[in-house]
Amino acid sequence: MKLQIALDRLTKEECEYTISEAYESVDWIEIGTGVIKEYGMEIVRSFRSKYPEKTIVADMKTCDAGAHEAKQVFEAGADITTVMAFAHDKTITDMQKEASDYGGRVMVDLLGVTSQQRVKELVDLNVDLVSLHFGKDMQQEADMDTGLFSILQDYPELDVAVAGGVKLETLPALLKHNPDTVIVGSAITKSDNPGWVSDQIKGEMDRYERNYAIRSS
Amino acid sequence: MKLQIALDRLTKEECEYTISEAYESVDWIEIGTGVIKEYGMEIVRSFRSKYPEKTIVADMKTCDAGAHEAKQVFEAGADITTVMAFAHDKTITDMQKEASDYGGRVMVDLLGVTSQQRVKELVDLNVDLVSLHFGKDMQQEADMDTGLFSILQDYPELDVAVAGGVKLETLPALLKHNPDTVIVGSAITKSDNPGWVSDQIKGEMDRYERNYAIRSS
Repeated sequence: MKLQIALDRLTKEECEYTISEAYESVDWIEIGTGVIKEYGMEIVRSFRSKYPEKTIVADMKTCDAGAHEAKQVFEAGADITTVMAFAHDKTITDMQKEASDYGGRVMVDLLGVTSQQRVKELVDLNVDLVSLHFGKDMQQEADMDTGLFSILQDYPELDVAVAGGVKLETLPALLKHNPDTVIVGSAITKSDNPGWVSDQIKGEMDRYERNYAIRSS
Repeated sequence: MKLQIALDRLTKEECEYTISEAYESVDWIEIGTGVIKEYGMEIVRSFRSKYPEKTIVADMKTCDAGAHEAKQVFEAGADITTVMAFAHDKTITDMQKEASDYGGRVMVDLLGVTSQQRVKELVDLNVDLVSLHFGKDMQQEADMDTGLFSILQDYPELDVAVAGGVKLETLPALLKHNPDTVIVGSAITKSDNPGWVSDQIKGEMDRYERNYAIRSS
């Protein structure tokens, strides 16, 4: 299970400070949409060169011009880029083609998707990596149990990243769904001690995974 | 009727060359999504200071984090920013609030919207400016007559900008729908003579408007 740190609404310097503190526990470094729109591809190139051994997720949230935006961001050094689930199928397949050329991956952002129909269409397009967003009002344990995960229940082969206000307190409810990647933003980036918080979160994820393996064996 | 030049898939230097050539005929300068993602807010600030008397449309294509992205781009000097129609209502209303604070406007990008239902919801949110996109396969006259404009027919009060492969040859079919703004990209930016093409397009728009006024009077 991977920990993806979402760097959003931060200056470049704040991003770098957070990464330096959380470096050991973080697997995937997400450059948030607002950060990309602030600094452009230069920040992707910079993070690629600064953190060569980490997976760089550029949260491009592409809606259109898939080939162009995928080429742009893979060229800058991203390993993974994102596209909105509601984009045209061609936008998504054009990005997949670029990803294949560059050895990258495309993560489909399921923001706003509430039915299995679109998920089925995405799987039919050979989408293999998606992200689920929980709104701020949906982060109660009860909602997590009955919530958005249900649209994915028929597709256990999908690689699933989950975002949306994840913090240490709400992590156990989330882990029960056994996501492949947990995306954490402000719980780490706005913390007084980002290194400690990310260590705790990653530790909890590792514990859950070990117990899950034991129960499944 | 306004002419909006869409600067997409261009370097900053190519954008500036195009603007210098097309300056007189262009009303709104659109900084395309890919250009924003390449250069960040710096290019918005730069164009704001270089072209103080033109309306700057930053095609942010915001999907989420509306307040943050609107603040970011209005702060950088944009007059108008864009949000996807499929974003959450709160994303749109958060942007409208920022627009009101900064004296800017929000243009809702109707990409992917095919029913009147979402248009009605947007109007209920006090949206007053939208953009319609025609795909490359929809630019035949026949399709334009029966096409996407129909989702807007009950809302004549909406300020409508139309994009999608508009060129001199297809302009008459488009003008029949009497859009408020015509968005032109590669027909100008990829032309050997962007100044001449934009003058021709603007001239055709002006002629149409005069004839329309005569017929209506």
